[in-house]
Amino acid sequence: MREEILQRLAGLGFLEADARTLADHFLDAEARGKRGHGLSRVEWLETLPGIDPTARPKKVAEAPGYERWDGNGALGYLTLAAIVEAQLASPPADARLVVAQRCFPTGMLGHWARKLADGGLVAVLTATSPPRLAHPEGGPVLAGTNPLAIAVPSSDGRPLVADASMGAVTYGDVIAGLASEEELVPFGGEHAHKAFALAVGLQLLVDSLVVEPGYGTVLLVARPEADPVPALRTRAGGLRLPGDR
Amino acid sequence: MREEILQRLAGLGFLEADARTLADHFLDAEARGKRGHGLSRVEWLETLPGIDPTARPKKVAEAPGYERWDGNGALGYLTLAAIVEAQLASPPADARLVVAQRCFPTGMLGHWARKLADGGLVAVLTATSPPRLAHPEGGPVLAGTNPLAIAVPSSDGRPLVADASMGAVTYGDVIAGLASEEELVPFGGEHAHKAFALAVGLQLLVDSLVVEPGYGTVLLVARPEADPVPALRTRAGGLRLPGDR
Repeated sequence: MREEILQRLAGLGFLEADARTLADHFLDAEARGKRGHGLSRVEWLETLPGIDPTARPKKVAEAPGYERWDGNGALGYLTLAAIVEAQLASPPADARLVVAQRCFPTGMLGHWARKLADGGLVAVLTATSPPRLAHPEGGPVLAGTNPLAIAVPSSDGRPLVADASMGAVTYGDVIAGLASEEELVPFGGEHAHKAFALAVGLQLLVDSLVVEPGYGTVLLVARPEADPVPALRTRAGGLRLPGDR
Repeated sequence: MREEILQRLAGLGFLEADARTLADHFLDAEARGKRGHGLSRVEWLETLPGIDPTARPKKVAEAPGYERWDGNGALGYLTLAAIVEAQLASPPADARLVVAQRCFPTGMLGHWARKLADGGLVAVLTATSPPRLAHPEGGPVLAGTNPLAIAVPSSDGRPLVADASMGAVTYGDVIAGLASEEELVPFGGEHAHKAFALAVGLQLLVDSLVVEPGYGTVLLVARPEADPVPALRTRAGGLRLPGDR
Protein backbone atom coordinates (compact mmCIF):
# COMPACT_ATOMS: atom_id res chain seq x y z
CA MET A 1 0.00 0.00 0.00
CA ARG A 2 2.66 2.49 1.07
CA GLU A 3 4.84 1.53 -1.87
CA GLU A 4 2.00 2.10 -4.30
CA ILE A 5 1.33 5.56 -2.88
CA LEU A 6 4.99 6.47 -3.02
CA GLN A 7 5.11 5.41 -6.65
CA ARG A 8 2.06 7.48 -7.54
CA LEU A 9 3.52 10.52 -5.78
CA ALA A 10 6.83 9.99 -7.54
CA GLY A 11 4.83 9.91 -10.75
CA LEU A 12 3.58 13.41 -9.91
CA GLY A 13 7.21 14.52 -9.68
CA PHE A 14 7.72 14.58 -5.91
CA LEU A 15 11.17 13.84 -4.54
CA GLU A 16 11.42 10.74 -2.39
CA ALA A 17 11.59 12.62 0.93
CA ASP A 18 8.54 14.70 0.07
CA ALA A 19 6.63 11.66 -1.14
CA ARG A 20 7.36 9.97 2.21
CA THR A 21 6.11 13.03 4.12
CA LEU A 22 2.89 13.01 2.08
CA ALA A 23 2.37 9.26 2.32
CA ASP A 24 2.91 9.32 6.10
CA HIS A 25 0.21 11.97 6.42
CA PHE A 26 -2.33 10.16 4.23
CA LEU A 27 -1.74 6.81 5.97
CA ASP A 28 -1.95 8.39 9.43
CA ALA A 29 -5.29 9.92 8.44
CA GLU A 30 -6.57 6.55 7.28
CA ALA A 31 -5.38 4.86 10.46
CA ARG A 32 -7.19 7.46 12.57
CA GLY A 33 -10.44 7.02 10.69
CA LYS A 34 -10.16 10.45 9.03
CA ARG A 35 -10.54 8.96 5.59
CA GLY A 36 -11.44 12.32 4.11
CA HIS A 37 -7.81 13.33 4.64
CA GLY A 38 -6.47 9.95 3.60
CA LEU A 39 -5.81 8.06 0.39
CA SER A 40 -8.63 9.74 -1.52
CA ARG A 41 -6.36 12.77 -1.51
CA VAL A 42 -3.73 11.09 -3.66
CA GLU A 43 -6.22 10.84 -6.47
CA TRP A 44 -7.32 14.40 -5.74
CA LEU A 45 -3.70 15.62 -5.99
CA GLU A 46 -3.47 13.97 -9.39
CA THR A 47 -6.32 16.20 -10.56
CA LEU A 48 -5.16 19.46 -8.91
CA PRO A 49 -3.97 21.94 -11.53
CA GLY A 50 -0.67 23.74 -11.22
CA ILE A 51 1.06 21.58 -8.65
CA ASP A 52 4.79 22.28 -8.60
CA PRO A 53 6.44 19.32 -6.87
CA THR A 54 9.80 21.06 -6.79
CA ALA A 55 8.59 24.28 -5.10
CA ARG A 56 10.03 24.95 -1.66
CA PRO A 57 8.35 26.92 1.17
CA LYS A 58 10.39 29.79 2.53
CA LYS A 59 10.54 31.78 5.74
CA VAL A 60 9.89 35.39 4.75
CA ALA A 61 10.00 37.14 8.15
CA GLU A 62 11.54 36.34 11.51
CA ALA A 63 11.68 38.06 14.89
CA PRO A 64 11.76 36.80 18.49
CA GLY A 65 8.49 34.95 19.05
CA TYR A 66 7.37 35.31 15.44
CA GLU A 67 7.89 33.80 12.01
CA ARG A 68 6.04 34.21 8.74
CA TRP A 69 6.36 31.64 6.00
CA ASP A 70 5.16 31.51 2.41
CA GLY A 71 4.21 28.29 0.69
CA ASN A 72 5.87 29.66 -2.44
CA GLY A 73 3.98 27.23 -4.65
CA ALA A 74 4.67 24.15 -2.52
CA LEU A 75 1.81 22.01 -1.24
CA GLY A 76 0.49 23.07 2.15
CA TYR A 77 1.30 19.63 3.52
CA LEU A 78 4.97 20.14 2.69
CA THR A 79 4.93 23.73 3.92
CA LEU A 80 3.61 22.62 7.31
CA ALA A 81 6.11 19.78 7.41
CA ALA A 82 8.96 22.25 6.83
CA ILE A 83 7.58 24.60 9.51
CA VAL A 84 7.28 21.77 12.03
CA GLU A 85 10.83 20.64 11.29
CA ALA A 86 12.11 24.19 11.73
CA GLN A 87 10.36 24.58 15.10
CA LEU A 88 11.76 21.30 16.39
CA ALA A 89 15.24 22.24 15.19
CA SER A 90 15.03 25.67 16.81
CA PRO A 91 12.33 25.73 19.51
CA PRO A 92 11.16 29.07 20.89
CA ALA A 93 12.61 30.31 24.17
CA ASP A 94 9.03 30.65 25.44
CA ALA A 95 6.53 30.84 22.60
CA ARG A 96 6.37 31.65 18.91
CA LEU A 97 3.59 32.53 16.50
CA VAL A 98 4.15 31.10 13.04
CA VAL A 99 1.95 32.41 10.25
CA ALA A 100 2.05 30.62 6.90
CA GLN A 101 0.54 32.31 3.89
CA ARG A 102 -0.23 30.57 0.59
CA CYS A 103 -0.35 27.31 2.49
CA PHE A 104 -2.89 24.82 1.10
CA PRO A 105 -3.95 22.03 1.42
CA THR A 106 -2.89 21.18 4.94
CA GLY A 107 -4.86 18.00 5.66
CA MET A 108 -5.33 16.52 9.11
CA LEU A 109 -3.88 19.24 11.35
CA GLY A 110 -3.49 16.88 14.30
CA HIS A 111 -0.82 15.05 12.29
CA TRP A 112 1.43 18.13 12.29
CA ALA A 113 0.56 19.26 15.81
CA ARG A 114 1.34 15.79 17.13
CA LYS A 115 4.86 15.95 15.70
CA LEU A 116 5.49 19.09 17.73
CA ALA A 117 4.10 17.51 20.91
CA ASP A 118 6.19 14.39 20.27
CA GLY A 119 9.14 16.78 20.24
CA GLY A 120 8.12 18.31 23.57
CA LEU A 121 6.33 21.45 22.36
CA VAL A 122 2.76 22.60 22.95
CA ALA A 123 1.07 23.39 19.63
CA VAL A 124 -2.11 25.12 18.54
CA LEU A 125 -2.77 25.06 14.80
CA THR A 126 -5.55 26.24 12.53
CA ALA A 127 -5.87 26.54 8.76
CA THR A 128 -8.26 28.01 6.25
CA SER A 129 -9.65 26.30 3.18
CA PRO A 130 -12.24 27.20 0.54
CA PRO A 131 -15.42 28.62 2.09
CA ARG A 132 -17.97 25.84 2.60
CA LEU A 133 -19.88 26.81 5.76
CA ALA A 134 -22.85 29.15 5.62
CA HIS A 135 -24.50 30.97 8.51
CA PRO A 136 -26.90 28.66 10.37
CA GLU A 137 -29.69 30.92 9.12
CA GLY A 138 -28.63 30.43 5.50
CA GLY A 139 -27.05 32.67 2.90
CA PRO A 140 -23.71 32.31 1.12
CA VAL A 141 -20.81 30.19 2.36
CA LEU A 142 -18.66 32.43 4.53
CA ALA A 143 -15.96 30.29 6.14
CA GLY A 144 -13.90 27.18 5.58
CA THR A 145 -14.37 24.18 7.82
CA ASN A 146 -11.26 25.61 9.55
CA PRO A 147 -10.12 22.94 11.99
CA LEU A 148 -8.41 23.69 15.28
CA ALA A 149 -5.78 21.27 16.55
CA ILE A 150 -4.25 21.43 20.03
CA ALA A 151 -1.41 19.11 21.00
CA VAL A 152 0.09 18.87 24.47
CA PRO A 153 3.15 16.72 25.23
CA SER A 154 3.09 14.18 28.02
CA SER A 155 5.79 12.61 30.17
CA ASP A 156 4.10 9.26 29.57
CA GLY A 157 4.92 9.53 25.89
CA ARG A 158 1.28 9.84 24.85
CA PRO A 159 0.51 13.45 23.94
CA LEU A 160 -3.07 14.61 23.89
CA VAL A 161 -4.05 15.77 20.41
CA ALA A 162 -7.45 17.41 19.94
CA ASP A 163 -8.32 18.08 16.31
CA ALA A 164 -11.80 19.18 15.36
CA SER A 165 -13.11 20.91 12.27
CA MET A 166 -16.09 23.21 12.50
CA GLY A 167 -18.09 21.30 9.90
CA ALA A 168 -20.55 18.52 10.67
CA VAL A 169 -18.61 16.69 7.97
CA THR A 170 -15.39 17.64 6.18
CA TYR A 171 -14.95 18.42 2.53
CA GLY A 172 -12.61 15.47 2.54
CA ASP A 173 -15.58 13.31 3.53
CA VAL A 174 -17.43 14.68 0.50
CA ILE A 175 -14.43 13.93 -1.76
CA ALA A 176 -14.22 10.43 -0.30
CA GLY A 177 -17.92 9.86 -0.99
CA LEU A 178 -18.67 9.54 2.73
CA ALA A 179 -20.99 12.54 2.95
CA SER A 180 -23.02 14.83 0.73
CA GLU A 181 -22.37 18.54 0.22
CA GLU A 182 -25.70 19.29 1.93
CA GLU A 183 -24.29 17.86 5.16
CA LEU A 184 -21.40 20.35 5.03
CA VAL A 185 -22.79 22.76 7.65
CA PRO A 186 -21.41 24.01 10.98
CA PHE A 187 -21.64 21.16 13.50
CA GLY A 188 -23.76 21.47 16.61
CA GLY A 189 -27.38 21.18 15.53
CA GLU A 190 -29.30 23.62 17.73
CA HIS A 191 -25.92 25.05 18.81
CA ALA A 192 -24.53 25.36 15.28
CA HIS A 193 -24.10 29.10 15.86
CA LYS A 194 -21.16 28.20 18.15
CA ALA A 195 -19.27 26.18 15.53
CA PHE A 196 -20.13 28.86 12.95
CA ALA A 197 -18.73 31.57 15.24
CA LEU A 198 -15.52 29.60 15.75
CA ALA A 199 -15.18 28.92 12.00
CA VAL A 200 -15.61 32.61 11.17
CA GLY A 201 -13.30 33.66 13.99
CA LEU A 202 -10.56 31.27 12.85
CA GLN A 203 -11.08 32.36 9.23
CA LEU A 204 -10.54 36.02 10.08
CA LEU A 205 -7.68 35.23 12.45
CA VAL A 206 -5.76 33.69 9.56
CA ASP A 207 -6.96 36.23 7.01
CA SER A 208 -5.85 39.11 9.26
CA LEU A 209 -2.34 37.74 9.85
CA VAL A 210 -1.27 36.86 6.30
CA VAL A 211 0.29 39.43 3.99
CA GLU A 212 -0.47 37.55 0.77
CA PRO A 213 -4.17 36.75 0.43
CA GLY A 214 -5.20 33.12 0.13
CA TYR A 215 -5.46 30.10 2.35
CA GLY A 216 -3.07 30.00 5.24
CA THR A 217 -2.25 28.56 8.62
CA VAL A 218 -1.59 30.01 12.05
CA LEU A 219 0.51 28.00 14.48
CA LEU A 220 1.38 28.76 18.08
CA VAL A 221 4.25 26.77 19.55
CA ALA A 222 5.27 27.06 23.19
CA ARG A 223 7.47 25.33 25.72
CA PRO A 224 5.35 23.65 28.40
CA GLU A 225 5.77 24.68 32.03
CA ALA A 226 3.76 21.75 33.40
CA ASP A 227 2.83 18.16 32.53
CA PRO A 228 -0.95 17.88 32.97
CA VAL A 229 -1.72 15.00 30.57
CA PRO A 230 -0.93 11.98 32.79
CA ALA A 231 -3.23 13.19 35.58
CA LEU A 232 -6.04 13.72 33.09
CA ARG A 233 -5.59 10.20 31.75
CA THR A 234 -5.82 8.85 35.29
CA ARG A 235 -9.03 10.78 35.96
CA ALA A 236 -10.47 9.64 32.65
CA GLY A 237 -10.00 5.97 33.53
CA GLY A 238 -10.21 3.93 30.36
CA LEU A 239 -12.12 6.53 28.33
CA ARG A 240 -10.69 7.32 24.93
CA LEU A 241 -9.21 10.83 24.95
CA PRO A 242 -8.85 13.07 21.88
CA GLY A 243 -6.18 11.80 19.52
CA ASP A 244 -5.97 8.31 21.04
CA ARG A 245 -6.17 5.44 18.59
CA MET B 1 -28.98 49.99 37.67
CA ARG B 2 -25.30 50.75 37.12
CA GLU B 3 -25.22 52.87 40.26
CA GLU B 4 -26.72 50.06 42.33
CA ILE B 5 -24.12 47.60 41.05
CA LEU B 6 -21.30 50.03 41.76
CA GLN B 7 -22.58 50.47 45.31
CA ARG B 8 -22.79 46.73 45.92
CA LEU B 9 -19.25 46.26 44.58
CA ALA B 10 -18.02 49.12 46.74
CA GLY B 11 -19.67 47.32 49.63
CA LEU B 12 -17.43 44.34 48.86
CA GLY B 13 -14.43 46.62 49.23
CA PHE B 14 -13.57 47.27 45.58
CA LEU B 15 -12.01 50.59 44.64
CA GLU B 16 -14.08 52.76 42.33
CA ALA B 17 -12.00 52.06 39.21
CA ASP B 18 -12.20 48.30 39.77
CA ALA B 19 -15.92 48.44 40.49
CA ARG B 20 -16.40 50.26 37.18
CA THR B 21 -14.38 47.61 35.34
CA LEU B 22 -16.53 44.87 36.88
CA ALA B 23 -19.83 46.67 36.32
CA ASP B 24 -18.95 47.34 32.68
CA HIS B 25 -18.30 43.63 32.16
CA PHE B 26 -21.52 42.49 33.84
CA LEU B 27 -23.66 45.03 31.98
CA ASP B 28 -22.01 44.19 28.64
CA ALA B 29 -22.81 40.50 29.26
CA GLU B 30 -26.45 41.37 30.00
CA ALA B 31 -26.69 43.56 26.90
CA ARG B 32 -25.34 40.73 24.73
CA GLY B 33 -27.80 38.22 26.12
CA LYS B 34 -25.11 36.32 28.03
CA ARG B 35 -26.98 36.64 31.29
CA GLY B 36 -25.00 33.84 32.88
CA HIS B 37 -22.02 36.22 32.91
CA GLY B 38 -24.14 39.20 33.91
CA LEU B 39 -25.72 40.62 37.01
CA SER B 40 -26.23 37.23 38.66
CA ARG B 41 -22.48 37.27 39.15
CA VAL B 42 -22.64 40.24 41.53
CA GLU B 43 -24.65 38.17 43.96
CA TRP B 44 -22.29 35.25 43.32
CA LEU B 45 -19.27 37.43 44.13
CA GLU B 46 -20.94 38.34 47.42
CA THR B 47 -20.92 34.64 48.33
CA LEU B 48 -17.38 33.79 47.07
CA PRO B 49 -15.06 33.10 49.99
CA GLY B 50 -11.67 34.76 50.28
CA ILE B 51 -12.08 37.62 47.85
CA ASP B 52 -9.37 40.23 48.37
CA PRO B 53 -10.58 43.39 46.67
CA THR B 54 -7.25 45.12 47.19
CA ALA B 55 -5.10 42.38 45.57
CA ARG B 56 -3.25 43.38 42.40
CA PRO B 57 -2.24 41.08 39.53
CA LYS B 58 1.42 41.14 38.65
CA LYS B 59 3.55 40.33 35.63
CA VAL B 60 5.97 37.62 36.77
CA ALA B 61 7.92 36.94 33.56
CA GLU B 62 8.59 38.85 30.37
CA ALA B 63 10.53 38.24 27.17
CA PRO B 64 10.06 39.27 23.54
CA GLY B 65 6.76 37.75 22.41
CA TYR B 66 5.92 36.38 25.86
CA GLU B 67 4.53 37.45 29.22
CA ARG B 68 3.36 35.48 32.22
CA TRP B 69 1.09 37.06 34.80
CA ASP B 70 -0.20 35.91 38.17
CA GLY B 71 -3.58 36.92 39.52
CA ASN B 72 -1.95 37.22 42.92
CA GLY B 73 -5.29 36.98 44.70
CA ALA B 74 -7.11 39.47 42.46
CA LEU B 75 -10.30 38.50 40.66
CA GLY B 76 -9.73 37.04 37.21
CA TYR B 77 -11.87 39.81 35.71
CA LEU B 78 -9.47 42.42 37.07
CA THR B 79 -6.42 40.39 36.10
CA LEU B 80 -7.62 40.19 32.50
CA ALA B 81 -8.46 43.90 32.55
CA ALA B 82 -4.90 44.69 33.68
CA ILE B 83 -3.43 42.42 31.01
CA VAL B 84 -5.56 44.01 28.27
CA GLU B 85 -4.52 47.48 29.40
CA ALA B 86 -0.85 46.46 29.40
CA GLN B 87 -1.09 45.05 25.84
CA LEU B 88 -2.75 48.19 24.54
CA ALA B 89 -0.16 50.37 26.27
CA SER B 90 2.69 48.30 24.87
CA PRO B 91 1.57 46.28 21.84
CA PRO B 92 3.79 43.49 20.53
CA ALA B 93 6.08 44.17 17.59
CA ASP B 94 4.46 41.18 15.86
CA ALA B 95 2.81 38.84 18.35
CA ARG B 96 2.87 37.97 22.03
CA LEU B 97 1.65 35.03 24.09
CA VAL B 98 0.34 36.09 27.49
CA VAL B 99 -0.24 33.35 30.05
CA ALA B 100 -2.09 34.24 33.25
CA GLN B 101 -2.00 31.80 36.14
CA ARG B 102 -4.29 31.97 39.17
CA CYS B 103 -6.76 33.92 37.04
CA PHE B 104 -10.41 33.23 37.88
CA PRO B 105 -13.24 34.03 37.25
CA THR B 106 -12.85 35.62 33.84
CA GLY B 107 -16.44 35.95 32.66
CA MET B 108 -17.42 36.68 29.07
CA LEU B 109 -14.10 36.41 27.24
CA GLY B 110 -15.36 38.33 24.23
CA HIS B 111 -15.59 41.42 26.45
CA TRP B 112 -11.81 41.44 26.96
CA ALA B 113 -10.91 40.30 23.44
CA ARG B 114 -13.10 43.07 22.00
CA LYS B 115 -11.13 45.72 23.91
CA LEU B 116 -7.96 44.52 22.20
CA ALA B 117 -9.61 44.56 18.77
CA ASP B 118 -11.02 48.02 19.46
CA GLY B 119 -7.39 48.99 20.07
CA GLY B 120 -6.28 47.53 16.75
CA LEU B 121 -4.94 44.15 17.90
CA VAL B 122 -5.98 40.65 16.91
CA ALA B 123 -6.76 38.60 20.03
CA VAL B 124 -7.34 34.92 20.79
CA LEU B 125 -8.28 34.16 24.38
CA THR B 126 -9.22 31.07 26.34
CA ALA B 127 -9.68 30.37 30.05
CA THR B 128 -10.20 27.39 32.30
CA SER B 129 -12.80 27.06 35.03
CA PRO B 130 -13.92 24.25 37.34
CA PRO B 131 -14.39 20.95 35.47
CA ARG B 132 -18.02 20.57 34.42
CA LEU B 133 -17.90 18.67 31.11
CA ALA B 134 -17.74 14.90 31.01
CA HIS B 135 -16.82 12.71 28.06
CA PRO B 136 -19.81 12.26 25.72
CA GLU B 137 -19.76 8.58 26.73
CA GLY B 138 -20.04 9.47 30.42
CA GLY B 139 -17.67 9.25 33.37
CA PRO B 140 -16.29 12.03 35.57
CA VAL B 141 -16.17 15.69 34.59
CA LEU B 142 -12.83 16.29 32.87
CA ALA B 143 -12.80 19.83 31.51
CA GLY B 144 -14.22 23.27 32.15
CA THR B 145 -16.59 24.82 29.64
CA ASN B 146 -13.42 26.60 28.46
CA PRO B 147 -14.59 29.25 26.02
CA LEU B 148 -12.57 30.43 23.06
CA ALA B 149 -12.83 34.07 21.99
CA ILE B 150 -11.35 35.45 18.77
CA ALA B 151 -11.46 39.18 18.03
CA VAL B 152 -10.32 40.78 14.79
CA PRO B 153 -10.19 44.55 14.31
CA SER B 154 -11.91 46.18 11.37
CA SER B 155 -11.33 49.42 9.51
CA ASP B 156 -15.09 49.98 9.62
CA GLY B 157 -14.91 50.24 13.41
CA ARG B 158 -16.88 47.03 13.95
CA PRO B 159 -14.51 44.25 14.99
CA LEU B 160 -15.65 40.66 14.63
CA VAL B 161 -15.75 38.96 18.02
CA ALA B 162 -16.43 35.22 18.13
CA ASP B 163 -16.88 33.87 21.65
CA ALA B 164 -18.13 30.34 22.20
CA SER B 165 -17.90 28.06 25.19
CA MET B 166 -17.73 24.31 24.71
CA GLY B 167 -20.78 23.65 26.87
CA ALA B 168 -24.33 23.33 25.57
CA VAL B 169 -25.07 25.79 28.38
CA THR B 170 -22.69 27.73 30.63
CA TYR B 171 -22.31 27.34 34.36
CA GLY B 172 -23.35 30.97 34.48
CA ASP B 173 -26.66 29.91 32.94
CA VAL B 174 -27.01 27.40 35.76
CA ILE B 175 -26.22 30.09 38.36
CA ALA B 176 -28.72 32.41 36.72
CA GLY B 177 -31.40 29.70 36.86
CA LEU B 178 -31.59 29.55 33.06
CA ALA B 179 -30.45 25.94 32.74
CA SER B 180 -30.08 22.80 34.81
CA GLU B 181 -26.77 21.13 35.67
CA GLU B 182 -27.84 18.11 33.59
CA GLU B 183 -27.75 20.31 30.47
CA LEU B 184 -24.09 21.17 31.17
CA VAL B 185 -22.60 18.83 28.55
CA PRO B 186 -20.34 19.44 25.53
CA PHE B 187 -22.42 21.10 22.82
CA GLY B 188 -22.98 19.44 19.49
CA GLY B 189 -25.43 16.60 20.03
CA GLU B 190 -24.26 13.78 17.77
CA HIS B 191 -21.01 15.75 17.27
CA ALA B 192 -20.44 16.44 20.96
CA HIS B 193 -17.08 14.65 20.71
CA LYS B 194 -15.84 17.70 18.79
CA ALA B 195 -16.72 20.22 21.50
CA PHE B 196 -15.40 17.79 24.11
CA ALA B 197 -12.10 17.49 22.23
CA LEU B 198 -11.79 21.27 22.02
CA ALA B 199 -12.66 21.67 25.73
CA VAL B 200 -10.04 19.11 26.76
CA GLY B 201 -7.49 20.56 24.37
CA LEU B 202 -7.98 24.10 25.69
CA GLN B 203 -7.91 22.77 29.27
CA LEU B 204 -4.52 21.14 28.76
CA LEU B 205 -3.20 24.07 26.76
CA VAL B 206 -3.73 26.32 29.77
CA ASP B 207 -2.71 23.68 32.30
CA SER B 208 0.56 23.05 30.43
CA LEU B 209 1.54 26.72 30.22
CA VAL B 210 0.96 27.87 33.83
CA VAL B 211 3.63 27.46 36.49
CA GLU B 212 1.24 27.72 39.45
CA PRO B 213 -1.58 25.17 39.21
CA GLY B 214 -5.15 26.45 39.15
CA TYR B 215 -7.45 28.15 36.68
CA GLY B 216 -5.78 30.36 34.15
CA THR B 217 -5.99 32.09 30.81
CA VAL B 218 -3.98 32.02 27.62
CA LEU B 219 -4.06 35.06 25.35
CA LEU B 220 -2.47 35.57 21.97
CA VAL B 221 -2.22 39.18 20.77
CA ALA B 222 -0.91 40.07 17.34
CA ARG B 223 -0.68 43.02 15.00
CA PRO B 224 -2.91 42.49 11.96
CA GLU B 225 -1.33 42.49 8.50
CA ALA B 226 -4.66 42.68 6.67
CA ASP B 227 -8.22 43.96 7.14
CA PRO B 228 -10.57 41.09 6.19
CA VAL B 229 -13.65 41.99 8.25
CA PRO B 230 -15.34 44.56 5.95
CA ALA B 231 -15.30 42.19 2.96
CA LEU B 232 -16.81 39.43 5.08
CA ARG B 233 -19.58 41.76 6.21
CA THR B 234 -20.31 42.60 2.60
CA ARG B 235 -20.49 38.92 1.62
CA ALA B 236 -22.72 38.21 4.63
CA GLY B 237 -25.28 40.81 3.58
CA GLY B 238 -27.49 41.58 6.52
CA LEU B 239 -26.76 38.39 8.45
CA ARG B 240 -25.76 38.84 12.06
CA LEU B 241 -22.08 37.98 12.47
CA PRO B 242 -20.47 36.75 15.72
CA GLY B 243 -20.32 39.48 18.33
CA ASP B 244 -22.80 41.79 16.61
CA ARG B 245 -25.59 43.11 18.77
